[in-house]
Amino acid sequence: MKKIALLGSTGSIGTQTLDIVRHHPEQFRVTALSAGGNVDLAVKQAKEFKPGIISLASKELADEARPHLPSGTKVVYGDEGLIEVAAATDADTVVTAIVGSRGLPATLAAIEEGKTIGLANKETLVTAGHLVMQRAKQRGVAILPIDSEHSALFQCLNGERRADVLGITLTASGGSFRDRTRAELEGVTVAEALNHPNWSMGAKITIDSATMVNKGLEVIEARWLFDLEYDRINVLIHPESIIHSFVEFVDHSIIAQLGMPDMRVPIQYALTYPGRMTTPTERLNLADVAKLQFRAMDYERYPCLRLAFDCGRMGHSAPAVYNAANEIAVARFLRGEISFLDIERVLETVVERHDAREIFDLESIAEVDQWARELAATV
Amino acid sequence: MKKIALLGSTGSIGTQTLDIVRHHPEQFRVTALSAGGNVDLAVKQAKEFKPGIISLASKELADEARPHLPSGTKVVYGDEGLIEVAAATDADTVVTAIVGSRGLPATLAAIEEGKTIGLANKETLVTAGHLVMQRAKQRGVAILPIDSEHSALFQCLNGERRADVLGITLTASGGSFRDRTRAELEGVTVAEALNHPNWSMGAKITIDSATMVNKGLEVIEARWLFDLEYDRINVLIHPESIIHSFVEFVDHSIIAQLGMPDMRVPIQYALTYPGRMTTPTERLNLADVAKLQFRAMDYERYPCLRLAFDCGRMGHSAPAVYNAANEIAVARFLRGEISFLDIERVLETVVERHDAREIFDLESIAEVDQWARELAATV
Repeated sequence: MKKIALLGSTGSIGTQTLDIVRHHPEQFRVTALSAGGNVDLAVKQAKEFKPGIISLASKELADEARPHLPSGTKVVYGDEGLIEVAAATDADTVVTAIVGSRGLPATLAAIEEGKTIGLANKETLVTAGHLVMQRAKQRGVAILPIDSEHSALFQCLNGERRADVLGITLTASGGSFRDRTRAELEGVTVAEALNHPNWSMGAKITIDSATMVNKGLEVIEARWLFDLEYDRINVLIHPESIIHSFVEFVDHSIIAQLGMPDMRVPIQYALTYPGRMTTPTERLNLADVAKLQFRAMDYERYPCLRLAFDCGRMGHSAPAVYNAANEIAVARFLRGEISFLDIERVLETVVERHDAREIFDLESIAEVDQWARELAATV
Repeated sequence: MKKIALLGSTGSIGTQTLDIVRHHPEQFRVTALSAGGNVDLAVKQAKEFKPGIISLASKELADEARPHLPSGTKVVYGDEGLIEVAAATDADTVVTAIVGSRGLPATLAAIEEGKTIGLANKETLVTAGHLVMQRAKQRGVAILPIDSEHSALFQCLNGERRADVLGITLTASGGSFRDRTRAELEGVTVAEALNHPNWSMGAKITIDSATMVNKGLEVIEARWLFDLEYDRINVLIHPESIIHSFVEFVDHSIIAQLGMPDMRVPIQYALTYPGRMTTPTERLNLADVAKLQFRAMDYERYPCLRLAFDCGRMGHSAPAVYNAANEIAVARFLRGEISFLDIERVLETVVERHDAREIFDLESIAEVDQWARELAATV
């Protein structure tokens, strides 16, 4: 019986994680939950899974939820509540399905407590990759990726020697505007941007997929997860999202992971690794799919991806700045304040004005993060 | 330094094995060779690689080669010579690149001596799968597949638990007549049949690829190599031969092995397993390939494949009969005695007239083999 603390239970990854637990009650138990502002869903989840503790975003939300929670469920709130859920329970695995920079301190706290991390929070490795991986190594903690691309790569590396890896390739569907030229991106609406062709995901990640910032964050994550320099990380457009990513070895043999686009497979893999278990997901039938297509990444068409590689190579605080500026830019786009193409303009402006500095701790990350957010809100 | 005995050095797999040795002289040494009737090439190979022993098909050929061989190379011949090369040298790995039933006794002899087997001889597992795998297990001998499909599957299974395998799928290019209907197969010439779209191979295997007998033999091999029942073995048409085969796991995750069609990759993998080494082969660029296509296997179009599954399920002597009848039928086709479609007629007739009996040893295989050959030569 694996005991799971789930951070971000009401989001897309969170609800799918609970779906897996629901299908394997003999294998998994959710002992701690953290949710954001969706009190109704959080209460419903607490009633179903009866965790020992649940955290909500604020004291007000916690007070609102309290009367409706099962008697055995303690309620906490805020950043402290989040960390309590991540680190101060008897869970052996923490699934970090929370979106945004708030995932980092909670993930580090869980690592300190020696908990296995099911990592779905991109920002953790993007903003503090070397700190997190170093600490995980020191504590002997496994970081198991939940993102479909990283899970694919992780699976492809099974039983292989890292020294034999020539490079890795992350596939990219191209997002909701894949077949539009840059000129055709002028004046696209929020609703159009949210209409992803293959994956059903949260709003922020769907926009990040259309700008290719999502792939950029994944590239930076992959650099840390697999300890590979950027020259060994490639991105390939693959509209069908069937090959989720692949590894090329020194003998030019390529190992790829394939499947229907369904996040429950990589989520479950992180929970069952190194084994596997049955899932309620659809099987891939390649004869039905009939055709898989590929084309080279176009860095002119997707300048945010080029910028991610640039920031990754700059290193230090640059990826954190890229990430923070993007969070603000996407929020502004979703609120209708700026246009879709403005997202990349904001990113480029903020990154350009930043002098990358070394990252020693959470405080130095918080500083550049704050600086980038403030600038991104105004340019 | 790995010492290699190479059976079938002048054939397609044999010469490519030597090409790998040539590229990694610091890693591999060829200590024993066996060739068939191509004395000129065998002598040339002996001069280059200076094996301690070489075997030729007959006393006459051995006498012809002797004056031209390096002074340190002993020459032997016939079935006994083949077995001496396979089992009586200090080689630690035996590559069985010989085509046909003659590979079986030599492979078994090598297993008895505890040598690692790089298996390229299909007939070994087709005719005596349970005997060979049982003996290899008892002797603690690794059977490393060299066929591209089986090597692909073997690589996909790296680090995985066999209990987690839902099924395997062998891909098939469809062979030289892939886009022809059955009616269009009437009267095709030997030259047309030898023109394979993707792989450069020997004549017999190219015909076997066009009839899909090759895939049938691979299915039977896979059954023994991976200890899977036939219900878990699938075949998929994939014209580009880029995905060499794949494994589906219980969580519906699929791991596939991809690469340019070049036998040197799987041959080398068998020699470097569990590690990998650089190769002079071309890298796969999926953006250049642009498109991978798949369609369901059509067992009406390829009745020989259906027959292979039938023989596999019948078990015992049936696969040996299928294989022997095919060897004769292909030889008759290549000599212009029978038409292309007659190959399947011969196979079906011989299999139909056979009563499957249990296989205890090489003698019982030899008996049904002889029976099938005699019948296949006349129907």
